Amino acid sequence: MNPYQAPLKDMQFLLEDVFDATSTWQSMPDIAEMVDTDTAMAILDEASKISRDLIHPLNRSGDEQGVRHEGDKVITPDGFKEAYQEFADGGWVGLCGDAELGGMGMPKMLGVLVDEMSYSACNSFTLYGSLTAGAALAINAHATDELKNTYLPNLYSGQWAGAMDMTEPQSGSDLRTIRTKAVPNDDGSYAISGTKIFITGGDHDLTENVIHLVLAKLPDTNGISLFLVPKINVNEDGSLGEANGVSVGSIEHKMGLKASATCVMNFDNAKGYLVGKPNRGLVCMFTMMNYERLAIGIQGLGSSQAAYQMAAEYAKERMQGLAAGGSPTGADSDPIIVHGDVRRMLLTIRALTDAGRALSVFTGKQLDLAKYGSDEAKSKAARYVGLMTPVAKAFLSDRGLDATIMAQQVFGGHGYIRETGIEQLVRDTRIAQIYEGTNGIQAIDFLGRKVTGDNLATLKEFVADVREDLAGLSHIDDADKEAVLDRFEQIVQTAAFINDNKVAQPALINASAVDFLDAFGYTLYGFYSLLMADKAANHEDSDFKAQKAFVARFYMDKLLAKADYHLAQVNQGDSAIMSMPENLF
Amino acid sequence: MNPYQAPLKDMQFLLEDVFDATSTWQSMPDIAEMVDTDTAMAILDEASKISRDLIHPLNRSGDEQGVRHEGDKVITPDGFKEAYQEFADGGWVGLCGDAELGGMGMPKMLGVLVDEMSYSACNSFTLYGSLTAGAALAINAHATDELKNTYLPNLYSGQWAGAMDMTEPQSGSDLRTIRTKAVPNDDGSYAISGTKIFITGGDHDLTENVIHLVLAKLPDTNGISLFLVPKINVNEDGSLGEANGVSVGSIEHKMGLKASATCVMNFDNAKGYLVGKPNRGLVCMFTMMNYERLAIGIQGLGSSQAAYQMAAEYAKERMQGLAAGGSPTGADSDPIIVHGDVRRMLLTIRALTDAGRALSVFTGKQLDLAKYGSDEAKSKAARYVGLMTPVAKAFLSDRGLDATIMAQQVFGGHGYIRETGIEQLVRDTRIAQIYEGTNGIQAIDFLGRKVTGDNLATLKEFVADVREDLAGLSHIDDADKEAVLDRFEQIVQTAAFINDNKVAQPALINASAVDFLDAFGYTLYGFYSLLMADKAANHEDSDFKAQKAFVARFYMDKLLAKADYHLAQVNQGDSAIMSMPENLF
Repeated sequence: MNPYQAPLKDMQFLLEDVFDATSTWQSMPDIAEMVDTDTAMAILDEASKISRDLIHPLNRSGDEQGVRHEGDKVITPDGFKEAYQEFADGGWVGLCGDAELGGMGMPKMLGVLVDEMSYSACNSFTLYGSLTAGAALAINAHATDELKNTYLPNLYSGQWAGAMDMTEPQSGSDLRTIRTKAVPNDDGSYAISGTKIFITGGDHDLTENVIHLVLAKLPDTNGISLFLVPKINVNEDGSLGEANGVSVGSIEHKMGLKASATCVMNFDNAKGYLVGKPNRGLVCMFTMMNYERLAIGIQGLGSSQAAYQMAAEYAKERMQGLAAGGSPTGADSDPIIVHGDVRRMLLTIRALTDAGRALSVFTGKQLDLAKYGSDEAKSKAARYVGLMTPVAKAFLSDRGLDATIMAQQVFGGHGYIRETGIEQLVRDTRIAQIYEGTNGIQAIDFLGRKVTGDNLATLKEFVADVREDLAGLSHIDDADKEAVLDRFEQIVQTAAFINDNKVAQPALINASAVDFLDAFGYTLYGFYSLLMADKAANHEDSDFKAQKAFVARFYMDKLLAKADYHLAQVNQGDSAIMSMPENLF
Repeated sequence: MNPYQAPLKDMQFLLEDVFDATSTWQSMPDIAEMVDTDTAMAILDEASKISRDLIHPLNRSGDEQGVRHEGDKVITPDGFKEAYQEFADGGWVGLCGDAELGGMGMPKMLGVLVDEMSYSACNSFTLYGSLTAGAALAINAHATDELKNTYLPNLYSGQWAGAMDMTEPQSGSDLRTIRTKAVPNDDGSYAISGTKIFITGGDHDLTENVIHLVLAKLPDTNGISLFLVPKINVNEDGSLGEANGVSVGSIEHKMGLKASATCVMNFDNAKGYLVGKPNRGLVCMFTMMNYERLAIGIQGLGSSQAAYQMAAEYAKERMQGLAAGGSPTGADSDPIIVHGDVRRMLLTIRALTDAGRALSVFTGKQLDLAKYGSDEAKSKAARYVGLMTPVAKAFLSDRGLDATIMAQQVFGGHGYIRETGIEQLVRDTRIAQIYEGTNGIQAIDFLGRKVTGDNLATLKEFVADVREDLAGLSHIDDADKEAVLDRFEQIVQTAAFINDNKVAQPALINASAVDFLDAFGYTLYGFYSLLMADKAANHEDSDFKAQKAFVARFYMDKLLAKADYHLAQVNQGDSAIMSMPENLF
């Protein structure tokens, strides 16, 4: 198996030709001074080398060896500590971090591509940095200057790591019921006590400190507040002090992500610092969540890309059977890529991965515009961040699992063997559909809050933009444009039906949400497929142009119709779902 | 987690009310003297106890411990040897075996239900007996009386085990290229030399001997012949002699099925005996294959049933969030089964599992009729066995994976943790889509040979039967009958289109096959859902009746339309799949 090769040409194409990175960045003063297209490509090029040469070699061994919990220590697999140090030294943890506090100040539109490469190379490794960047983001947005100055430089530099501590045994999707307590100390800090589970990167040996962002309740409140709780206390001069009351109860043994430490964390009167306002912890957490949810979607995307490369290479090398109608070369055996069913699987993965990358970059661009854009751009982009984040999280991770399973199928029996590596991608990416809010939760957020929450205003705004964009595509047939637009119109009509009936039928949104999101996702990918085919029509590389045209044709002929099925499901209402009494299940 | 509970009521219902086991068995003299409905229910009841109390307790520990290869020995996990002995002593290995040679002579229609229970309890454990039964079947159908008398009693009794040795490193789906050689010895036996891979149960410590059925080539031929090759030679008096030239090269480390020994087998001038005619080995192997392929479909079905039980139980116990519109009990939290999205997932699994069991029993019935029926019944049943076997293998195993993944999603984060057990079902059942002929191969067999191979004669015959059956259902609305029939008609039309164009477009079948099979499968399940709802309408248990009606309603409203999407894919032809040049992948 060749090592992972980042799809740099596709990435450059999306930045430059599809989503106008150059003009976008020039429109944002904070970004314009940090990055231009050449810098961006140099960063992507360097990231591709790091992913291939530093991170990817740890992937299989990390899976086989796994994380260990020995005494009070959590030990990552061989090589992780050294690689993480090099990764951090290269500035990758703080790539999109605040430049004034030690980050590199790069736009998320670029960061999503670096994230994808890293996830393609190794899901487990990438999570440590991703959680750290997410924690830094929440601290930067909501903490006091004192906390920011104390913690952010060391988080951006990767010297310390971050973790998010939300879930408790009785409290998963429903955070109302958390029991972790925060009692005020005399010095303005808080004493945090409670148990958190499923804490990714909750402890490990990669960094000298782990900075926890912990959801807890103040005395006599039901509100939830956010606290910064370091594993090791930090002295006023910034040096490390004594251990805080933070300990690892155990580590979880999981289906995959075996090199990622998933910890049960115990807080025993641990010293913590309030981040943001009392009882507003969920709001603070959600600042980070938009980024983290996109990142988890990108986990699925990265796995999908890695799976594609492995399966396509295998399909070109594995000789088995003869092409229907006879071998094109007159050989005794042909590579399995001649077989229609194998091509169908590869094209499906390719089409979903290419369109998924477009969704990832688009969403990253909206995050940048919402943060750095003009006032007008900010407001619109914020609406689109809200709309697209649950789609990116759920649809990218769902299609990521599909892709890895399909790629595994291309390998036949060899795909079931651990050393081939493709089954690890299935196991590793499976969690992306579950954590950071299950994909069911994402779909309910999408349909219940983002689509119907503003009476379809943002959805209609987005569809109007799509209509305008499609009208401008000069290399695309009207029939294909209509096929996409027609489905978007049906989606709007279906959303209107749900919006009109959501009070009378309170279960309608929950019961319809996943199919609604899928219908939107498959239609959206149709739009991106056409957009890419159009923008590639003048590409200097004729193979690249042809490839985008073939993939778009495949998408339109074969995959777009999936939206119809999901819409049909939604349009059947919730009666068949809600009627059966619980005892009959 | 409660131990596995076999769905005995559903099984009895299918045998007695849906597929007329009593009259079917009475029509077959060989079966009528062995079994009646009471005996069958007693067997199912006993099998449910064995599955729950003997097999299921080995499932998690077997996964954690796995099979070991030490020196020249393959060692199964703790408890497997003792349990297998008890399983064999109960007659379960030879349940459907030839009664004159030590089998219990039971019909497959009953055997499929026992298989399902066993797979639900433990995928890995069940394979050892399943491969043994399959090997016995091929020997019984094609070997000499001498071989039959020597080997079958010990295989049926479970004292010896069986294995199928087909795949070689260069030869997977395409068996033309096998290199294993068979050279005639002076005594009428053959010297077998070569290497086989992916041999399930190739060696282990459960039994004192393993009987291999090996595909090999005679000198100066390209034909493939089948040989019986014992691990330990058998003396003329039936006692065990010296070791044969059969050794284990290594065992595979796999995604799942960790307690099933998957071996690389080396044959070094091993003594073997021809089974069937020279150069007709594939024909002999395929006698077994119809049974084995159904069995592997049932692996998916068994996993699906186990996944359903686990997820439904969890959904009733796990408190999280409130029902849309307010808690029905006024509680602070509701069990997650109140949520539409959770119900959607559970109903999907349930509907597919119930219909899948109907497909399993129907196919088992056809195998029985083809073997034991009147001449007229035999011929028709043989056609239906041909038609339904690839559907049962592929559709049951594909939907089995869907079911386990969906059930895992119901568990949220807990579903990703090994000790919960649901992730093991995903890993274990994944292989069922790959081995015994990938599901792509099954689909090509279905569309290319079974459907278009006789110019749609069998397909049309089957659809005519469905039409007649539907007409007789007095408790089903015409609209629902029409919905199913209309799709069957579309399937026939699509098949006719492919049949008409298969010569001009040689890639059409390969490129369309999986979607065609899926369209057929989803439509077929619609038929079975209605059939079961109708037959349950007079059931003495009103809950059972209601449950079947709810599930059928859900299937018709929500799942049947999947057939439309797959048909749409097929009807788009193969151009989008076949056009892209290989170098652009």
